[in-house]
Amino acid sequence: SMNPDLASERQTASFSVEKLTALLDGSTEQTRIRRAVVEAIESDPVFSRENQYFQTQNERYEAAVRKAVHLQKKMHEMGWTENGPEYKYIYRALSGDVAFLLHRVFMRSISVLGSDKQIAKWIPLATQHKLIGSYAQTELGHGTYLQGLETTAVFDTATQEFILNTPKISAMKWWPGDMGRSATHSVVFAQLYIHGKCYGIHPFIVQIRSLQDHSLCPGITAGDIGPKMNFEHIDNGYLLLKNVRIPRENMLSKFCEVQPDGTYVRQGSQQINYFTMTTVRISLISDEVLTPLMKACTIAIRYSVVRRQSKLKPGEQEAKILDYQTQQEKLLPQLAAAYAFHFINDYLQELFNRGYREIQRKNFDMLPELHALSSGFKAIITQHCTAGVDICLRACGGHGYSLLSGLPSLYTKIVASCIYEGENTILLLQTARFLIKCFMAASAGQPVPPSVTYLAAVKHGNCPAKNKFDFLSPDIYTEAYQHVAARLTSSTAAKLQDLIQSGVKKHDAWNQCTVQLVQAAKAHCHYIAVKNFAETVEKLETKAGIQKIMKHLCDLFALHGIFSNTGAFLHDGYTSAAQMDMVTASYLDLLAVIRKDAVPLVDAFDFTDKSLNSALGSYDGQVYQRLYEWAQKSPTNQMSPAYERYLKPLLHNMLSKL
Amino acid sequence: SMNPDLASERQTASFSVEKLTALLDGSTEQTRIRRAVVEAIESDPVFSRENQYFQTQNERYEAAVRKAVHLQKKMHEMGWTENGPEYKYIYRALSGDVAFLLHRVFMRSISVLGSDKQIAKWIPLATQHKLIGSYAQTELGHGTYLQGLETTAVFDTATQEFILNTPKISAMKWWPGDMGRSATHSVVFAQLYIHGKCYGIHPFIVQIRSLQDHSLCPGITAGDIGPKMNFEHIDNGYLLLKNVRIPRENMLSKFCEVQPDGTYVRQGSQQINYFTMTTVRISLISDEVLTPLMKACTIAIRYSVVRRQSKLKPGEQEAKILDYQTQQEKLLPQLAAAYAFHFINDYLQELFNRGYREIQRKNFDMLPELHALSSGFKAIITQHCTAGVDICLRACGGHGYSLLSGLPSLYTKIVASCIYEGENTILLLQTARFLIKCFMAASAGQPVPPSVTYLAAVKHGNCPAKNKFDFLSPDIYTEAYQHVAARLTSSTAAKLQDLIQSGVKKHDAWNQCTVQLVQAAKAHCHYIAVKNFAETVEKLETKAGIQKIMKHLCDLFALHGIFSNTGAFLHDGYTSAAQMDMVTASYLDLLAVIRKDAVPLVDAFDFTDKSLNSALGSYDGQVYQRLYEWAQKSPTNQMSPAYERYLKPLLHNMLSKL
Repeated sequence: SMNPDLASERQTASFSVEKLTALLDGSTEQTRIRRAVVEAIESDPVFSRENQYFQTQNERYEAAVRKAVHLQKKMHEMGWTENGPEYKYIYRALSGDVAFLLHRVFMRSISVLGSDKQIAKWIPLATQHKLIGSYAQTELGHGTYLQGLETTAVFDTATQEFILNTPKISAMKWWPGDMGRSATHSVVFAQLYIHGKCYGIHPFIVQIRSLQDHSLCPGITAGDIGPKMNFEHIDNGYLLLKNVRIPRENMLSKFCEVQPDGTYVRQGSQQINYFTMTTVRISLISDEVLTPLMKACTIAIRYSVVRRQSKLKPGEQEAKILDYQTQQEKLLPQLAAAYAFHFINDYLQELFNRGYREIQRKNFDMLPELHALSSGFKAIITQHCTAGVDICLRACGGHGYSLLSGLPSLYTKIVASCIYEGENTILLLQTARFLIKCFMAASAGQPVPPSVTYLAAVKHGNCPAKNKFDFLSPDIYTEAYQHVAARLTSSTAAKLQDLIQSGVKKHDAWNQCTVQLVQAAKAHCHYIAVKNFAETVEKLETKAGIQKIMKHLCDLFALHGIFSNTGAFLHDGYTSAAQMDMVTASYLDLLAVIRKDAVPLVDAFDFTDKSLNSALGSYDGQVYQRLYEWAQKSPTNQMSPAYERYLKPLLHNMLSKL
Repeated sequence: SMNPDLASERQTASFSVEKLTALLDGSTEQTRIRRAVVEAIESDPVFSRENQYFQTQNERYEAAVRKAVHLQKKMHEMGWTENGPEYKYIYRALSGDVAFLLHRVFMRSISVLGSDKQIAKWIPLATQHKLIGSYAQTELGHGTYLQGLETTAVFDTATQEFILNTPKISAMKWWPGDMGRSATHSVVFAQLYIHGKCYGIHPFIVQIRSLQDHSLCPGITAGDIGPKMNFEHIDNGYLLLKNVRIPRENMLSKFCEVQPDGTYVRQGSQQINYFTMTTVRISLISDEVLTPLMKACTIAIRYSVVRRQSKLKPGEQEAKILDYQTQQEKLLPQLAAAYAFHFINDYLQELFNRGYREIQRKNFDMLPELHALSSGFKAIITQHCTAGVDICLRACGGHGYSLLSGLPSLYTKIVASCIYEGENTILLLQTARFLIKCFMAASAGQPVPPSVTYLAAVKHGNCPAKNKFDFLSPDIYTEAYQHVAARLTSSTAAKLQDLIQSGVKKHDAWNQCTVQLVQAAKAHCHYIAVKNFAETVEKLETKAGIQKIMKHLCDLFALHGIFSNTGAFLHDGYTSAAQMDMVTASYLDLLAVIRKDAVPLVDAFDFTDKSLNSALGSYDGQVYQRLYEWAQKSPTNQMSPAYERYLKPLLHNMLSKL
């Protein structure tokens, strides 16, 4: 029973959906493996998310724990291993709705920061799930500023132990996942004190709960931080430490060690720590940010071709809402962004792999560029994708606002990505600091990393476009983006210099430039994203219509960015007002072109109905039936005892007495 | 135990907070009355919202019903009446967390659309709460396009009844508040058929549930539509009608009547129907849109002066996060917008009252302007305020993401205002239609309403500002806004004309211009908002520092709008790039100025801790204590039976067996 309004959209695809899916997956073989994982997970009732929108926070947590335990069996049963090709698809197939995610972070920290002896002791225990690990860094009073953490670890030479304390309420660990009710152990970050001297932040392994009865260990107070905007399935927790003693061997000591007499020995580079953060930022983009935007696009675009409302022409049938220009202008740029960011994710992964190889060869030269790009892209991708999901939600009107559409939970979850793993503004300022540094170096004729060489050669020409078709040339728009990014960086660098030369102190001057520095960092990343999309399209094979449709999306992504931010391009006259009108014309033309392939373009994301879990976005487009069927299952329609016993008589009473 | 970081902010206020509160309320007497209502409501435990963030949808609904019933007693006890001066403060004091809100819409529809006889019969029953009314317009398949509603009411001459049906699944009524479990009656909109001929949409009073035992009446299927992004306290419902018969007298018949023989008689004007919609759109701005933004600003700004993170200068104490320019740039424009929209709300109320007086004198001339302004402002205010609440939430980092901050529920509720009572894009296009019509009329030398006379005289000069201080002159920036609004309207009108002259059909041409029409409508409303703010400031008394700080906020509101949308001002060269740099400089300067008064400016909104219900925004700024205390009360820390019985052993099992 395919909705005919949806079926008709699929008949006219200009390209092979299956080929595009394989391109997104990396190969047809990858697509096959992914589908097999999805099939195995979705056919197992323990992993069902069917009742998710009806569950309380406790029920969500309990289900997530059951799933995590069941997943171990499932993996064994299916022969999936952590190093196998299936592994990376499991999390996506579960839609992230599973417990013990911090267990992996716990293991990764030990692998990266622990000595060989520590790795040999803890990793097998963790791998065999003889403990459940968490990672306790953030405190009530400190998130982004790690140096300000207030938890202390004082070395006691007499007993060869560290004594851990959270001496103030603001020192309490807050937010660690799996901490509220699950974890037995945690890596805890604390200020190290030896003989009264502070040596800064170090990681310690601390046992939180008994392995016998799961009760809290002596000196430990821990619990759940309560309701959040989403992440009901995770027991984000708090942790208070009162004179908790751990052996000297529990300080992770690959880079720093406290010897029995209290001698502090630092060895190796601390820079590698930042590399771990870089890994996390890059790895979250795909699962936590792109997937939700792709799902939201799928839901909103499918809904927009089965929803008919009002008439485009008098006397005709009501129109599909996707035929309205305003609806196209909401949704299609989000679709283009999803593809743009998919390809930039490939770019970042490749850069990361290259960087990792260099680091293994003890060459740390790529670290600053990698840090700047991973920070900046984490920020702009999370911000764009969050805005995109929000637009998709609102574009579905009232039905989008129902939890049953799936869109509210996509939004409330993705918005957290703007905050966690580095708050976006802070990250963009780190990218900006790199840009300013490179701009200064480049201006002084020094060499700079490849992604910023363009800063050295700010061109003073104007955009050469003569008509609206010229703006479908990647050279034209990529150069415009480059020009804007270079101008914003150089003008902010100049402002910074002027302030300092006029006597403003360096730190004040920096603060007074931060709004503009953020703009420069965004422009830089936006430029790289456009350039990368254009270069990716260039390399695609021309068969099966793939390159053609990707070229349209690339154009749309680029022109939408100009159309939404015309001032940056007009400011110094690089683009004239007449050219801006050409941009607008080409941009609006493209909407109508891409609209024709909108449904095939979201079909290519290849989400199953179960993974979308949406009454609006199903493959068959039976929207109204599904909304009605689901609503009937809601606990609000299974009257609670309070309603029956208390409220119904009260209503009746009220009616007769008042 | 006032947090000293918060106390210090209050000591340096440049104006009298109490005087500003009185200005916002309208008078010191109004402030007194409001506070008395707040005090009476908040001291009554039945109205407590303390556990709100921990409750399920069923618990929220049940509490809201209890509150609604209790409110009747309270009003009687306090001597408050629906016509008394206290009434308008009750809803705000309850933070809208109460049931039976549609009961008033039910009554209003009968008052406006019913005959004298119908009013005499139904209004006393409703006033005495002998029934609970709802209002059923929206269907699964139709929201904005009322002509498309599919519910039918067929007149049966033999029995003198209407037979009501929802013939298709898409005809099912969907979303009506109080319908899911509470209402006994509803005004139902249906297509009227007499002798096989359709007469369009008409309102009918239909009984839904028994007044004896509250069971559903024959032919009625009704229930709750399930979980939503917010509004857990409201039982938004669905309604299926199968051959439900109601007497002829139940069609609301002030304007249209069906006589016993089936003769259809229309009398009076239908235009007044739109006026009801206008009323609703204007009335929701204050309670549903401005109050949430003001609360979000209060929470985020208070938090930003007690949260210290990182150092502005090396060696110093960690800085209050509000001292960072980027944090100021997030929050202070939202504060300025809250004030700007407060004053535009006054303007709209006054316009509405004037319009209402004219209508009573049978003069409908003001209706088009009133419709255009109420539509446009409903759209831009809900959009700005929703974005503002979102910015406040993210600006509080992880703690903002906790439900205990109060910010997530403010966001998930206010975002609905962009959708209900007219979806924003649809509304902006109605404003745009009015603008185009007036522009054509003005170009032809015909008279147009006062708010659009400026369209007649598009000036071709340039912005005369010579330095950054000139941009603190309301004449300079108001004129710039006016220029942009006029330019966008005239250029879109020209595009529309060109398309039609080149042979594109009128409706297609309109659709091809809608993205730009929306821009024009927004620019028009933004211009009026800036102009109104500047005129309001002009009229304020200069005493007690009020005018001075309001002038700063007005400047900030105006310059933020330019800074965020530079392209519109640069496009035709009205503002030069050099002038735009002056705007930026003045804008950034203003942030530092207003930052000093930020806390007093939110204190003036005069929210109590109970009404904010926020662990971050309390008057005393004891943020961390409150987060910890509240988290401990969470149901996630009162282990559920499932956890204790099933999961704890499972975890233990897992640890020992795997």
